[in-house]
Amino acid sequence: MYALPCGAMPCAKLLCCFCCCQLREGGGTSYGGDDGGSLRPMDAEQLRECGHRMVDFIADYYKSIERFPVLSQVQPGYLKELLPDSAPNRPDTLDTLFDDIREKIIPGVTHWQSPSYFAYYPSNSSTAGFLGEMLSAAFNIVGFSWITSPAATELEVIVLDWFAKMLKLPSQFLSDAPGGGVIQGTASEAVLVVLLAARDRTLKKHGKKSLEKLVVYASDQTHSALQKACQIAGIFPENFRVVKADCSKNYAVAPEAVTEAISVDLSSGLIPFFICATVGTTSSSAVDPLPELGNIAQGHDMWFHIDAAYAGSACICPEYRHHLDGVEKADSFNMNAHKWFLTNFDCSLLWVKDRSYLVEALSTYPEFLKNKASQANSVVDFKDWQIPLGRRFRSLKLWMVLRLYGVENLQSYIRNHIQLAEHFEQLVLSDSRFEVMTPRIFSLVCFRLLPPTSDHDGGRQLNYDLMDTANSSGKIFISHTVLAGKFVLRFAVGAPLTEEQHVDAAWKLLQDEATKLSGSA
Amino acid sequence: MYALPCGAMPCAKLLCCFCCCQLREGGGTSYGGDDGGSLRPMDAEQLRECGHRMVDFIADYYKSIERFPVLSQVQPGYLKELLPDSAPNRPDTLDTLFDDIREKIIPGVTHWQSPSYFAYYPSNSSTAGFLGEMLSAAFNIVGFSWITSPAATELEVIVLDWFAKMLKLPSQFLSDAPGGGVIQGTASEAVLVVLLAARDRTLKKHGKKSLEKLVVYASDQTHSALQKACQIAGIFPENFRVVKADCSKNYAVAPEAVTEAISVDLSSGLIPFFICATVGTTSSSAVDPLPELGNIAQGHDMWFHIDAAYAGSACICPEYRHHLDGVEKADSFNMNAHKWFLTNFDCSLLWVKDRSYLVEALSTYPEFLKNKASQANSVVDFKDWQIPLGRRFRSLKLWMVLRLYGVENLQSYIRNHIQLAEHFEQLVLSDSRFEVMTPRIFSLVCFRLLPPTSDHDGGRQLNYDLMDTANSSGKIFISHTVLAGKFVLRFAVGAPLTEEQHVDAAWKLLQDEATKLSGSA
Repeated sequence: MYALPCGAMPCAKLLCCFCCCQLREGGGTSYGGDDGGSLRPMDAEQLRECGHRMVDFIADYYKSIERFPVLSQVQPGYLKELLPDSAPNRPDTLDTLFDDIREKIIPGVTHWQSPSYFAYYPSNSSTAGFLGEMLSAAFNIVGFSWITSPAATELEVIVLDWFAKMLKLPSQFLSDAPGGGVIQGTASEAVLVVLLAARDRTLKKHGKKSLEKLVVYASDQTHSALQKACQIAGIFPENFRVVKADCSKNYAVAPEAVTEAISVDLSSGLIPFFICATVGTTSSSAVDPLPELGNIAQGHDMWFHIDAAYAGSACICPEYRHHLDGVEKADSFNMNAHKWFLTNFDCSLLWVKDRSYLVEALSTYPEFLKNKASQANSVVDFKDWQIPLGRRFRSLKLWMVLRLYGVENLQSYIRNHIQLAEHFEQLVLSDSRFEVMTPRIFSLVCFRLLPPTSDHDGGRQLNYDLMDTANSSGKIFISHTVLAGKFVLRFAVGAPLTEEQHVDAAWKLLQDEATKLSGSA
Repeated sequence: MYALPCGAMPCAKLLCCFCCCQLREGGGTSYGGDDGGSLRPMDAEQLRECGHRMVDFIADYYKSIERFPVLSQVQPGYLKELLPDSAPNRPDTLDTLFDDIREKIIPGVTHWQSPSYFAYYPSNSSTAGFLGEMLSAAFNIVGFSWITSPAATELEVIVLDWFAKMLKLPSQFLSDAPGGGVIQGTASEAVLVVLLAARDRTLKKHGKKSLEKLVVYASDQTHSALQKACQIAGIFPENFRVVKADCSKNYAVAPEAVTEAISVDLSSGLIPFFICATVGTTSSSAVDPLPELGNIAQGHDMWFHIDAAYAGSACICPEYRHHLDGVEKADSFNMNAHKWFLTNFDCSLLWVKDRSYLVEALSTYPEFLKNKASQANSVVDFKDWQIPLGRRFRSLKLWMVLRLYGVENLQSYIRNHIQLAEHFEQLVLSDSRFEVMTPRIFSLVCFRLLPPTSDHDGGRQLNYDLMDTANSSGKIFISHTVLAGKFVLRFAVGAPLTEEQHVDAAWKLLQDEATKLSGSA
């Protein structure tokens, strides 16, 4: 069992004595009143005491994060054995809770913030983002309409404009144009809301019974979130057109293939209405040809969406901005600040060129939500730009990241990860037992251990075993994909604590495991 | 301008000196490195320093929360005048940021945690919930699949089982049955996912082209989230059947009216497939007759959903549990722990009787997410129970609320608010100028100032003005609805800091404003 050195910090002890002695009785503090009437669940001094203890617990967690296995090694059902089967009638102490977090919860955590986390794409935490989460949880507002906390809506509008300028998005995406930005929870929700906007825009023209004719175009490298969005929106499954990406172009889609698919569909009487392009695909961080796809979309009056969930962050650097060329032809653009931009999950940024389509598809206005500001049409009510009604004050954390780090540092942060990925790529290239599978564009390296020519499944099991033994060691966490039928390992640099030493150690581990596997083969 | 007394606390000063002197240079600490390479966005000691400062800031906020206007009094566009129009290139100091939060953000916050907040329904914060948010933000995992943090999925399964037992839900809703519970962001998402499950279950039987025939039933008191879910799911607008609630039954729906609507639709060749009942409607906290509606749904093989977003919390008290009688006939049940259960937003609990319908409607399984545990079918992957792929570790905060307060205290907490609402109701009844509009069931009182018989609009403007002047005073925040054409004021008790003195002060304010309005009429 991996134990946190928590409670041993002089700071934590000092805090307990200093702030909270009046709350303490005996060995542990109980936070429920002894009778219900005395429960003070939002007592400022209790919040202060407990909050300080939690800060120390968390700082200690980060201090010792390298001591935990990156990928949790527990077995399914482990926690049920450790917890009671019903909620306690009487309150527990915070000390007991901390013990349980150390002993029962943390072993089941996969440490996305570990410097040796290289799986999927990153999920960045940072001090600034964390402070933003704290403050948002403290205000605990529900910002569905402007009036329910004007600062929440207005700060969101402002930081999304800031971000659009950092990305050099066309001015139509700014809030003083017919467009504007909004924070969604995830890229899945972003693509869903624009798909709905596009669907309803098209149905308005063709009649609602033409739903069965609507066709969506994407590549086989497009994130599965689009397929799910189509399921939700009622797009007929046979009208979700998956165009095979071009392996000669690093798995970007070939515009000609899209044009051809559209022609076939048009001649069948179907209605092409939505193209999704990706900047930084999930499998290999491929970049679809935006200008060509944008032209196709415009030529057929289709909605053009760009998913730059991961790679959008890199495009704040001038030397990577060219990957967004063509965005001026898009109807909507999405990137996740919670992936590689130091903003704690969730914070997915969506811009649209014409917000009226979103509002038309997603607005409701019951009596109980009516208010002066909304009725005067002088404000934005973000409830009409998203799936849920309620929404958190998420702009705070993004604002804090931008303020406390500044654009130049954020650019350097991105560049540093890309350099580390380049370094890893060089290491792979230097070992003839391995091959790099696609040209590295951002901070993801796709590679594999070359199988013997006689290998029965083309290296699938060999590379699966390499990944599995590496992950089971607890020392790193990497994930995989399949490209052109080949099982490929993905090494995505992007955790906030990752340094060159972690990349080197990961590579050494992979080399050592490869040697063992080759020896036993 | 209302200023926080922050920075004046000896505790905060001590912390700065004690923990962080090595980080400080000159007057303020900059949290970006001076060159990009040195940016350490997740340095444990910096997190500790800044986290402690934020805890003190937040505790001070709660200490002084009564000094702020409950409803923000800013004008639309106020923040744009106060902030620059692009992100800073160089980092700001935390001191500057705190100044901006005090001077620019807080004036635009509507204080949902104020003890004098009585609008809409509450959004509870608590020390335990806040600690859970902190820890969740610290781990910052993305728990789409079991493997991405087994503790996140398993703790969620366990606490939802605990909660189901607290509510005495039938055993089919527990995780060891074919059912189970899951945390959604909001009740809007909860009703959307079950509507999609029901839609796809029905389409499977009738063929996907029958979408245009599917009919949804609800009352005119059902939350607008259902209408929005129907829009999203592609239910034809003319097939969203809004049955007028029965004003003689406190605006609960009459089952006979639903039966009649179904008969008409059946004879038109339509397919009734979904009934939504509410326990605690948004306007007046009415309770629909669950057993009768359940029978109707079962008789027609329809999905029966219960929305108890607000009033579900009360049903953990034995004396209110009878409001859930009939839940055994439901396919799905939803309540919001983030409303009136001390769990910070967002945390909406959804249980289904047969999870396979959710999974069938919402699952995708791309190669890059495949893993041993999921493929062995030995675990739950909550990505297939919800709209987004990514998800936060939200069970932590609910677990902490249950652990640190205990069921008995939580029951007392609820009862206390209901008693305060009863007290307010008595106050209204004692003043013949006012009338109570519906029998109070939980902690909401619907009332209005009686208009003179000659009043041109039946008291609409009079009560609007009463609400507006009260809210504009900054002393309280209440909201309104319309019942049977009458403009009605809603007084919802449920903020964690509310005590009898706040209810009394609110009533006094309303009485005084009523006197002024009557005098000027």
